[in-house]
Order: sequence, then structure tokens, then C-alpha cells
Amino acid sequence: MQVFEKVESEVRSYCRSWPTVFTTASGSRLKDESGKSYIDFFAGAGSLNYGHNHPVIKQALLDYLAEDNIIHGLDKFTVAKRDFLETFDEIILTPRQLDYKVMFPGPAGNNAVEAALKLARKYTGRETVISFTNGFHGMTLGALAVTGNSMKRGGAGVPLNNVATMPFDNYMDGQMPDFLWLRSLLEDSGSGLDQPAAVIVETVQGEGGINVASDEWLRGLQEVCREYGMLLIVDDIQMGCGRTGPFFSFERAGIQPDIVTISKSLSGLGMPFALTMMKRELDVWEPGEHNGTFRGFNPAFVTATAALEHFWRTDELANSVHQTGEWLDGQLKELITEHASLNMSTRGQGLARGLVFENPEHASKVCSEVFQRGLLMESAGAEDEVVKFLPPLTTSDAEFKEGIGILADAVEAVGRNS
Amino acid sequence: MQVFEKVESEVRSYCRSWPTVFTTASGSRLKDESGKSYIDFFAGAGSLNYGHNHPVIKQALLDYLAEDNIIHGLDKFTVAKRDFLETFDEIILTPRQLDYKVMFPGPAGNNAVEAALKLARKYTGRETVISFTNGFHGMTLGALAVTGNSMKRGGAGVPLNNVATMPFDNYMDGQMPDFLWLRSLLEDSGSGLDQPAAVIVETVQGEGGINVASDEWLRGLQEVCREYGMLLIVDDIQMGCGRTGPFFSFERAGIQPDIVTISKSLSGLGMPFALTMMKRELDVWEPGEHNGTFRGFNPAFVTATAALEHFWRTDELANSVHQTGEWLDGQLKELITEHASLNMSTRGQGLARGLVFENPEHASKVCSEVFQRGLLMESAGAEDEVVKFLPPLTTSDAEFKEGIGILADAVEAVGRNS
Amino acid sequence: MQVFEKVESEVRSYCRSWPTVFTTASGSRLKDESGKSYIDFFAGAGSLNYGHNHPVIKQALLDYLAEDNIIHGLDKFTVAKRDFLETFDEIILTPRQLDYKVMFPGPAGNNAVEAALKLARKYTGRETVISFTNGFHGMTLGALAVTGNSMKRGGAGVPLNNVATMPFDNYMDGQMPDFLWLRSLLEDSGSGLDQPAAVIVETVQGEGGINVASDEWLRGLQEVCREYGMLLIVDDIQMGCGRTGPFFSFERAGIQPDIVTISKSLSGLGMPFALTMMKRELDVWEPGEHNGTFRGFNPAFVTATAALEHFWRTDELANSVHQTGEWLDGQLKELITEHASLNMSTRGQGLARGLVFENPEHASKVCSEVFQRGLLMESAGAEDEVVKFLPPLTTSDAEFKEGIGILADAVEAVGRNS
Amino acid sequence: MQVFEKVESEVRSYCRSWPTVFTTASGSRLKDESGKSYIDFFAGAGSLNYGHNHPVIKQALLDYLAEDNIIHGLDKFTVAKRDFLETFDEIILTPRQLDYKVMFPGPAGNNAVEAALKLARKYTGRETVISFTNGFHGMTLGALAVTGNSMKRGGAGVPLNNVATMPFDNYMDGQMPDFLWLRSLLEDSGSGLDQPAAVIVETVQGEGGINVASDEWLRGLQEVCREYGMLLIVDDIQMGCGRTGPFFSFERAGIQPDIVTISKSLSGLGMPFALTMMKRELDVWEPGEHNGTFRGFNPAFVTATAALEHFWRTDELANSVHQTGEWLDGQLKELITEHASLNMSTRGQGLARGLVFENPEHASKVCSEVFQRGLLMESAGAEDEVVKFLPPLTTSDAEFKEGIGILADAVEAVGRNS
Repeated sequence: MQVFEKVESEVRSYCRSWPTVFTTASGSRLKDESGKSYIDFFAGAGSLNYGHNHPVIKQALLDYLAEDNIIHGLDKFTVAKRDFLETFDEIILTPRQLDYKVMFPGPAGNNAVEAALKLARKYTGRETVISFTNGFHGMTLGALAVTGNSMKRGGAGVPLNNVATMPFDNYMDGQMPDFLWLRSLLEDSGSGLDQPAAVIVETVQGEGGINVASDEWLRGLQEVCREYGMLLIVDDIQMGCGRTGPFFSFERAGIQPDIVTISKSLSGLGMPFALTMMKRELDVWEPGEHNGTFRGFNPAFVTATAALEHFWRTDELANSVHQTGEWLDGQLKELITEHASLNMSTRGQGLARGLVFENPEHASKVCSEVFQRGLLMESAGAEDEVVKFLPPLTTSDAEFKEGIGILADAVEAVGRNS
Repeated sequence: MQVFEKVESEVRSYCRSWPTVFTTASGSRLKDESGKSYIDFFAGAGSLNYGHNHPVIKQALLDYLAEDNIIHGLDKFTVAKRDFLETFDEIILTPRQLDYKVMFPGPAGNNAVEAALKLARKYTGRETVISFTNGFHGMTLGALAVTGNSMKRGGAGVPLNNVATMPFDNYMDGQMPDFLWLRSLLEDSGSGLDQPAAVIVETVQGEGGINVASDEWLRGLQEVCREYGMLLIVDDIQMGCGRTGPFFSFERAGIQPDIVTISKSLSGLGMPFALTMMKRELDVWEPGEHNGTFRGFNPAFVTATAALEHFWRTDELANSVHQTGEWLDGQLKELITEHASLNMSTRGQGLARGLVFENPEHASKVCSEVFQRGLLMESAGAEDEVVKFLPPLTTSDAEFKEGIGILADAVEAVGRNS
Repeated sequence: MQVFEKVESEVRSYCRSWPTVFTTASGSRLKDESGKSYIDFFAGAGSLNYGHNHPVIKQALLDYLAEDNIIHGLDKFTVAKRDFLETFDEIILTPRQLDYKVMFPGPAGNNAVEAALKLARKYTGRETVISFTNGFHGMTLGALAVTGNSMKRGGAGVPLNNVATMPFDNYMDGQMPDFLWLRSLLEDSGSGLDQPAAVIVETVQGEGGINVASDEWLRGLQEVCREYGMLLIVDDIQMGCGRTGPFFSFERAGIQPDIVTISKSLSGLGMPFALTMMKRELDVWEPGEHNGTFRGFNPAFVTATAALEHFWRTDELANSVHQTGEWLDGQLKELITEHASLNMSTRGQGLARGLVFENPEHASKVCSEVFQRGLLMESAGAEDEVVKFLPPLTTSDAEFKEGIGILADAVEAVGRNS
Repeated sequence: MQVFEKVESEVRSYCRSWPTVFTTASGSRLKDESGKSYIDFFAGAGSLNYGHNHPVIKQALLDYLAEDNIIHGLDKFTVAKRDFLETFDEIILTPRQLDYKVMFPGPAGNNAVEAALKLARKYTGRETVISFTNGFHGMTLGALAVTGNSMKRGGAGVPLNNVATMPFDNYMDGQMPDFLWLRSLLEDSGSGLDQPAAVIVETVQGEGGINVASDEWLRGLQEVCREYGMLLIVDDIQMGCGRTGPFFSFERAGIQPDIVTISKSLSGLGMPFALTMMKRELDVWEPGEHNGTFRGFNPAFVTATAALEHFWRTDELANSVHQTGEWLDGQLKELITEHASLNMSTRGQGLARGLVFENPEHASKVCSEVFQRGLLMESAGAEDEVVKFLPPLTTSDAEFKEGIGILADAVEAVGRNS
């Protein structure tokens, strides 16, 4: 591993928790160079909802690459892009009655967020954006300004401005009525809050610690937005593509955001790909006013199309995620009961689940213990107090059971030593 | 093309100049659905320096995909990443005596720029960054602040701050000594310029209109930077990977930037990939202080490694780019002489060349005429007054001649009608 | 009045409510050109706590001006400044055990606020300042950023940044525990609130609508500040100099702010004068790092010294303000009961009192009616829903009774017509 | 002087160069407690153009104070304000055909600048303001952002933004054509300069080192402003009221700024007073959108009116300033010739003159030497390399000769010891 130490910047991170060199991966399993196998309950931070190297999606890619089909297309019209747009419209937008237009803002989630924020400010002519405690939206300056994590904000080196932070659902344990603070500020012309362009929210905060916004809260938020002419941006980069069950995580609440960002699992195979969607009337962009070199990575169009065809023509996956999520919740509750002295709790939606430790150190130790036993999990939350479940949605029952077994052993071990 | 109109945002741009649906591409040629073939002198805005679907690079990708090798790896250690780092160190860094460390800032050039700016501000504890007239560095808020184009800046919807603009080389036609203004501001404690963290510069401004900084100017800039404790960031996203001859465009000037960004042609196949390099002592990042979901797209490591192996073990490509560039310059000068009434001029470096029209409309018309004749070229510059050459470096003599022939016809046609 | 219309900017304001030309003033009474007399319950927005042309203070000024004593002194040492500093130290600081140093930041309250904010940011090396809903601190860009009023903020023409707004005491009618929101943000490293340099607060918000912070709330705020290394700035510009009873309005709460601003009634005669006070250890200014042409207006030193000598050697004034305030509160409560249909309420501290109308139009009408009857009062609050009492502290019982009588008639008239 | 050390902040500045306690002042002379007399060539940094305690102006003040005339009036209509407006209109505006409206932005010059910048941004809807190298406009955040001095900027503790700095006249010793850089940026849509709201300029930079803009340069600047829809703000706070000869310093260039700020000597007696003037059509303020407690300090209206009546009904003062300025220039040139080894030079306009030392230490020493000999002068310029002359315009020939004699001795002494 010498070359990593010599050449790769100290900014590297996950490799510090998982100090081994990985080689291959399939479905919910990875292997390292020594041949050791790991169950993957992390799934590329939610980028591999269909597992590693899903055979159907992979085959679509191989077929595309077998011919000299276009790989890099900027925003030229291509066959692969047309197929993707038609499929996305037919399978995703139309059945959900979402009259959205789609832009390709660049390959990464932060590009999608930056485009969303720019559009909201341009459309409304306002500058302030409302973000929420523990929100996570990316590392570029615009996206970082709406991100809560202080260590990451500190990396900016300049003040991050034109943003106001509001409490996420249940942030203060019900000690304040929902939106009381936000509404007070908006209604009061002496509040110091300049009229906001938009609100940006995750329905379930992943990096923030698997904090779930209730359906009522999300509907309430949409209502406040409409009342005060703020656009509602749902950042569905981590929770979209079925992570919580339905394709979009906001479907459960029956809301229609004005702008939606999506990325991570969109390509189906872990390839860089992101979309910003906006209600038709919001599409006020000048041609080229936002662009990006890799906004037309055609292999991602191809695999994304294959993933939509394979997984989203029916409700099967959404239902399965829902059921498995409930089962997982039950398993975690048993574990919590068994180890009452660790004061754990659980929360989540679909297959985004968190095991929350009263003592953040326990969460880190559990992640370390499961790694040694062949399971990849990461912590989340401001204090890294949450062991996060983002398994591939396609994980088999056997793999789930094996993973839970490893986790139980690890919790046992941590409990024993604390 | 109905689906594009219905579903794709108005922000789409290149497809407006090239209203056809492309299907396949190989080397320096693309085909559209009707079977019409186009010579490509645009090369994905410089992302396809080795042409479309280069067989050696492509084969490396296919080999990698044939097994269940890891595709999405975040910043886990992987075999593909190790191979890339070793190869990059051996073929690129070591022979050039560049004691750089490398970070993977995300898949796009703007990620590389954002990371560079953040690092420079963090390292120096200063906030202002010097950018240059007509610079182009990307569309995320941090990168956009150092980008000159007013239409693109306008898309931000908030003031773009913590930046001061300086004249690029020859910006005022030699009417002011180089760096006189910058030096005056830096030396004068009453100038209003707060001590800058860094300077960000392209050695040849591509989007800005193929403006070439002279070797002397670049050396002078490095000297000013060292004198005043400002970091020198070379954004080599478009001009790196051999576009101007050597792997890094700054080699010709004999300078060693403190931070270098690279992307576009780095993957060799048009796949999303970007690097930020920094002098070893600048690597003061906290683990995870900058991150990004697609910072470990392993297939790009594989194709980038193959491209380095194939093209950069020897000086052959660099030399060929130099020679072809000279030849191209000669051809353009002939064309200019033949059509003196159009008042054209040419400038450039290696295979980044511009044909500059006194009347910007002529440039647009030429681009339109060559498209109809089967050649893809785009305009650049603040007024779109420059017809830009960014052909694959691997374009054959025959293709070059054919392309130049088409261009000559187009110029002839535009001259006739003006 | 033609010249006003012709030459004075539309920004003029109070003269629109009181369309007459005033000539002389003494104690709590003004006269206009027609000879009509007005009782003044406004007192220059709190700048005339000792009434107009107080004879003792005035005499000190006349004595000073009778000789060629220095008028404009910048920050030269002068006799008048020395006298002021000695008197201020002896009568104000020492007895209250306030180990403050004093700076002369310029003649206006906003200069005092700007200096306070600059010092807090410089001392802590942090950028964010916490302000409160409906706070009012002045119209210069730094002071405006911590001011709540949206109309006034809109005048800035640029985003007002580096500030976070928190709820003032009782802002949400007790629906949220005090400081829960602020503490949550400070404790949570994922909250998005960057570590604040300081908190700036008024103990009673005057322009904001006579909103009184309780002693407990102020002590709680000081506690939060100490816990998180934030400086506590009390802006006592309007509420200082005895307006609420004691010289400093924060004395009642037993707190010791880190920085205090004071102005308005400080000169005792309505002359431009302001101070910024800081705990001794916070005095980290470089010589001249903040300055201002009129920071040494010596006649104001003289009148301020006279006012301190005359009014603050004993507790008499403070006690009288307290008693009169209680009496006034009783009078207002009677009025409220008599006119129950108008749904009024009252709040305040000392001689800063508000009569709050459910319907803001009623407040405006009352101000208009009292003017016609010879009484000057102004409305305050975000919706101008509060009729504000800021009478000279020296107003006689007879004048108070006459004023209250006029007010009662006006309320009666408004009630009759609504 | 103990109380100063104990109670006054370290920010105090002039008293460090002049460590004595001053008592009285008349005309061009001050006295300290020991009875020592000083000639004043500093005049309150230009606030005492008519000398200390001018008897006519002083008498007007005493007459006003003799009755209970209104002192503090906010923006109520008062007799004193009406008299001032009528006189200012009659004596200043009308004869110069300046169709301006006037606002009272607060008592200090920085209030006038803040109001000017706010109005320019509000009127144009643009955010960037052009300032000039070594400009000085005040210490509040908005004014500080357009001020060049790095030490003073550093006091802000936050980035100072929405400003672009341009070279003042002759900043680069004629090595660049006037406005070439500014025009290039404005004309080039790729320059990175967002369309500016306004330009703010001093015709002679006082604090910046007595840098004189030529008439041609000022006219050129007005032309650029008109061409690009930028408002021209002349900050005449230090150079107005006859300092350079005419009442407004810009009169010599025949320009008509869109907005003018004036303060310092406006009251005639060193009392806090400031005006912002704007072309009639720019008066788009909402009532109360900018305000300030001390915007209606009536004694300053009275003394300002007296000063206008006494000094500005004829051209006498302007002519005298011109002649004395020429004479002073001659004297300084003689001094320069006599002490060639010190490499001095001189520059200025009217009675704003600078003696520039190649070695900044010499300038400081000269100021120190003249103080000991009974003359007050201060240094200016980014390196404090300029000994600045801002004598009362009413200084007698005898006093001028005495002062110049002292200066000559001091220069002699410094030359001897260097």
C-alpha cells in the first residue's frame, strides 16, 4: 500500500477504516486481494442500490461498448440519450404525473445541487436558500453552503453565505411545533430573514444520521413553500432510486417538489451520472448558462436505461424494499433489547436504516469490529454516532441474515469491552 | 427529436448547433443516425485527445469489465487505483521531477477546481483568489467565481466574491507591462487588494478564445506568486494530456505550479475523471474534509492507466502534436492570406488552435457551414469570434487535410456572402 | 415647506407624520412656527432622556463655547475628553465594577455598532454574528446585517451576510424553551451554524416594538455566550442612559456584557456622540485600525460630563424612572380595559413602554390623532402595531397626565370610528 | 494623562504623535495645557477649513443656543433645517446648475458614503462598485469595502466584497493609458467584471497621499460612467468646502457627478454633519429606507448656513485658496531644491498639498520634528511617506510663513541626521 501513502493525499478517508485493497465485487459482496470476502451494507454510500456489477445492467454496458457507440457526447443529441429520456419519461415521470423537465448538470451529485440552487435563485430573483440541520448536499461551494457538517464547511476557507438553517423534522425532540420558527420568520417583516428563493431538503438525511422526515412534516414543508413563494428542492441523490422503497423518496408523502436532484444509484452500476429535474415552468435557463464536460456520459445513459427497464416497470422492488426494511427494523429492535446497556435505538425508512448509539465511540468500534468479521458498514451523524445501513436493495435474505449475525457479534464484543 | 424538446431542459446547447442525432464514433469521426459521417475537430471540448473509442484503451476497459472488478469504489483502496497511482507516478510525475501528491476530488473538472481553491485558501488562511480575464474554470459556485464569462456568471443568482481579476497575457495588446498592475496592487498596502491565497490560470485559455500565455509571462507569474506567498494553480483541465504537446501544458515554460488540476482527456476515453495535484507540503487536508461520491470510478483508473502506458512512455505523441500544430498553423495562415477581406488571424499552441474573425458573425457562420459539410467545430471567445481547433491528437494527416479542405470551402462560402 | 419638497430627498420620514415646522423646544415640549405646543413622548427616538435644552447641560455647553475651547479634536488628548473619561470612569464604570475600556468610534450609534462587530470578529477570528428577530442596530452595512427590518435591509442592494438570526425572548410565545434552538445549533457540529464571534442584543427592543427580554433570558444568554466562547454585545444605544431605570439597561439582569454600545442620550443634549466599551482584555485594536473624523466632538464630551454629574451621582433618576414607569403601566392598563374592543395590550420597562394594537392601523391612527391634539408619539414594531412611549425621563407628572389624557381621547376617537 | 491610558482604547491614534493635552484653539492655532502654542496645518483632517472657532460662525451658534431652539430634530421639519436647505440651494446648487436633491444620512462622512453606495446599488439593481487604489471612504463595512488601506481593511474581520479596484490617475506612472483596463473589462463580456452599479472617487486622495486626479482623467471617468450606465459618485468629504479652491472639488473638471458626499468642513465649526446629494431622478428612496438618529443636528444646520453665507456668496475664498496654494507649491519646491539629497517631491491642488519623501521614515521624522517646534502636520499615503498640508483656508500669510519656516527647520534637522 506504499504508493497510496506516497502519492495519495491525506484527504482520503474510507480507506482508513478499511485498510485493505479490494479487487472484485458482485451483488452484495466484495473481495480483497487476500481473497477475503465482505458483505457490503454500505453500497457505495447508496450508489449501488442494485448491487455491484448487476449482470443485466452490466450486459447492457458491454453490448454498448462492443460497438463504437459514442461514449463522451457533451449535450449532443445521441441515441443513448434519447433512449434514456424516453425511458425515464415513460417509466418514471409519466406514471407519477410529474411534469418535469430534465437537465444533465454534470456527472456528480454536487453538480445537480449547484444547478438546482442556481436555477432557484435565477427563477425567483432571491438569494437566500433555506437548508436544514445536518443536511448534506456536496463539497462544491454552493452545495457546501447548504451542508451542515462543520468540518466540511471549514474546508471552504471562505464564509459560506446566502443560506439560513432551519431545524429538520424532530430536531428538537418535539419541543417546538413544526415550522413554527420558519413561519414566524417568514411572516414577520422584522425577522431579518430575507425572502428565500428555495428550501433544499432530504426526506431522509443519510450522512446526517438517518434522520427521517415524517410525511406530515414534508407536506407541511411543501405548504409553507407554496404559501411564501419559495421553491421546494428535494435532494434525492442518496434516498432516490428505491432506497426508501418508491423510486423517489418523496412519493410516500404525496408531495411534488419544484426541483429534484438525483444521482448515485441512477446509472445502476455506480457510474458518474446526475440529473436535475424542474417543473416545466421553471425551465428558464439560457442555452449553455450551466454546462459541464461530462454531462453527456453515454454509457451511463445506457446502464440507467437498463436499470429502469429491469427494476422499475413494476412495483416489485419498491414492495420488497418496504418489507425487507420492516424485517430489518425488527431485527435491530431485537438487538437493541438484547444489549440494553448500550442504549441503542433505531430509525429509518425502507433500506436506509440507522443503529444509533448513545456513546458515539461504540458506533465506531462496531464498524471496526464488523469489518474484521467481513462486513462493511459506516457511521454517520454529526458525532458519527449512527451505524448506517445502506445495503444493496437486491441483497438476499441469506446475506441479510449473515450480515445481521456479524453485526450482532460485533455489538456483543463492543458491549463486552465497554 | 421530440423527446428532447419535451423532456430536456432549455439549457442544452451544442445540440442547437448540431441538430442531428449521433450514434457511433471512432478515432476522429462520428456518424449520425442517417449514416452521415463527420470529422471531429472538437473532440468533446478537449476530452478525447486520443480520439473516440481508442482501441487499446477500450480493450483495457472491456477486459476490466469482463470480470466482476470493482466499478464504484469511493476512496477505498483498489487494485485499479493502485495501478493508476503507480503508473501516474512512474510515467508522469517522477520523470518531470514533480513531487506532487494527488487527490481524487470528484469526477468533473469543476470538482478539481473547487478542491484546488479550497486547499489554497485553507493552506494560506487567505480568502482572495486572483483569476484572469476570459478564464474558464467551471460552473459550480467556487469555480464560477473565477470564470470570466458574464452570461455564465449571471446564472449564479448571487454575487460571486473573494476574487480579483487580472489581465491575461497580452490582454491589452502590450499597452501595459506584464504584471505591472498586479505587482503594484501587491506592493501597495493601500491598494485595496487583500493578500491573495492563490492565482488560478490556464496556460492557453480554451473557452476564452485560444489565448496563449507566453513562456515568459508564465515564468513571470510564478515569480510574482513566490514573491508574495501566493500559490500558483494551473488549471490544465483542457490543455493538459498533450493538447499543447507535453503532458502538462506548463512544461514548456519550465514552471512548477503549486497546485494543478487535470481532467477531460485524463481517462483517455471520455469518461468522468479528474485530479487535483498539490506539492507535498501543501497536503494539509483533514481526512474526508473534501469528498465526493464518484471520486473512485475505477474503470476510469483503468483506461487512464492504459492511456498513460500507450501514449506517454515516450515523447512521440508530444513531438507529433508539436509538428502537426506547426503544420496546422501554416495551413491556417495560407487560408488567412487567401481570404484577406475577412480579416482573420490565428493563434494557438500544439493542437489547440484558433482562427479568429474580426466579425464574430463570420465565426458562427463558418461553424454552421462546416457542420453541413461534415465537420464539427465550435466557436469560442467572449464574442464567439474564434473558430476553435481541438482535434484528437491522433487525427491522421488525411483527416486533417480533409478537415482543412472543408474549412476552406466554408470560409470561401462565408466570404462570398459577406 | 416648498424647499423641503424641492430639495430634500424622499427618504425623509418623520416629517410625513408631523407635517409642521418646529422651532423651539424645552423639557418635554416643542413648539411649531404657528405657536402650537406639543408634548413630546418621543424624545428624539430616545436621544433626549433629559428633555430638550436641559438648562444645566445647556449652560455647560454655553460656558465651554464662551471661550475658544477646542470643538473638533479627532482623537487628540483634550481637557474636555479627559474630564469626560474621568467622570465616566468615576460615576459609571467604577461603581458598577465594570472594568471596561472605552473607544470613540464616531459620532453615531451605527459607528459604535460597527466598531463592536469589527472588534468581536477580530478578537475571536470568527465571522458569524448572532442577531435577534426584530433587532435594530443601524443603517451602515455592518449594522444593517444584524438589523431585522426587511424594508431597511432591502436598501442595502447587496446580500447581508455573516449573520444568523435567533428568536428574541418570547418570540414564539413560549412555544419553545429559551435558547433551545441556539444551543442545539451550537452543540451540534452538523448544524450548519459556523462558530459565532458574538451575539448582539438589545435588552428591550425599541424599534422592534418595545419587546422586553426578561432578566432570566438575559442571564441565560450570557451563559450560552460564555459556554461557547461567543462575545456578548449589548447594544444599549436606545435603552441606555436611564431609559429603563439604571444607567445601563442590562444592570437589572446582573450581567456583564463583553462589549457595550451607547449613544443617543449620552451627550445629554441630543448631540452626536457614541461610545463602544469593551472588557479590558478585548482591547486588541491596532492604533487607528478604526477611526472617524468626528470621534472627538468636544462639546459632546462637555455636555455628557455635565449630564453624568447632574443625573447619575445618585439613584434618584433611576428610581424615579422605575416609579413613573409603573404608574404609566397602570394608566395604560386602565385605558386597555376601558377600550376592550380594540384588543390592546401593553409592555415595557422603565419609561420605554408600548401600547400594542391588535390591528396595526389603529396604532397609526392613534399617532395621527395625538399629533393633532398636540402630542408627539411614534409607532414601532415590524407592522407598526405599537404606539411607543419614549418620553423624556424628566417629564413632570402634570405633563404625563396631560399626555395620557390626549392619548385617551385619541384612543377613544379611533375606537369610535373603527 | 493616566486616565487615557487606563480608560481609552488602544485604537487611539493621533494622540500618540502629539502627546500633549490641548485646551483652546482659534483660527490656525491651538494651545496645550502648558500654554504652548501650535500652528495647525492639519485642521481636523480637513474638518476646519475656516479655522477653529471662527467668530462669525461661532456667533451664529451662540445666538441659536441662546434661545431654546431645537437641537435634536431627527428628520422633522425645523426652521434651522429650512434655512440651511434654502441657503444651500441658493448659494451652492443653483449657481452651479446642480439639480440635486439632498439627504441627511447621519452625522458622519461614512454615513454619507454608505447612503451613496446603497442608493447606487438600489437604483441600478447592480452590486459591484468600482473603487480606486488608495481611496479612503470610511470605517463602516460598506465604506471600508471601497477603502484601500490594508490595515484598516483587516479590522473588518470579514471579507469585503462586491467591489473592484481600479488604478487611480497616474497610479502606474503613465505606463498604461487612462481607463484602458477599466474599459477593457467593461467592454469584454468575458472579463469577469460584473456590470458595476457605480464608481466612487475622490478628486484628490487625501488619506491616500494627496494624489491629484487631473481634469482630463475626471472627465474621462465621467465619460466611461455614462457609456456603461455606472453612476459617478464623488466623495468630496475631505476635498469639498473649498479645500481645493471651489466649493466642490470637481468643479475644476467641469463634471457633474450623479451622487456627491460631503461632510467634514460642512458645518464650518467642526461639528458632525454630512450630506449625500443625488441627481433628482436618482431619488428613489422609500421614506425611512435609510435613517439615523443624528441626521437632524440643528446646530450644525445653523453653523453650516452661517459658513455658506460668510464664505460662499463670492469667489473670494476660492480665489485666495488658489493663490495661496500656488505660493505654497513654490515654497515647497524651494525646500525640495535646497534639500536635494532627501529626494522630496510635491503635489497637490489648492490647499491640499503633500511633501513626498522617497524614504517614508523621513516623513514621520519631519512630523515629529515640527510638532516639537509648534506645528501640527500629519503623514499620509500607504507607507506614510507624505507630509500632508491641510491648513485652514483662512490661515494668514504670517502664519503660513511661520509654519513653512518651522517645516524648513525640521527638514533641515532630518536631513542632517540621515
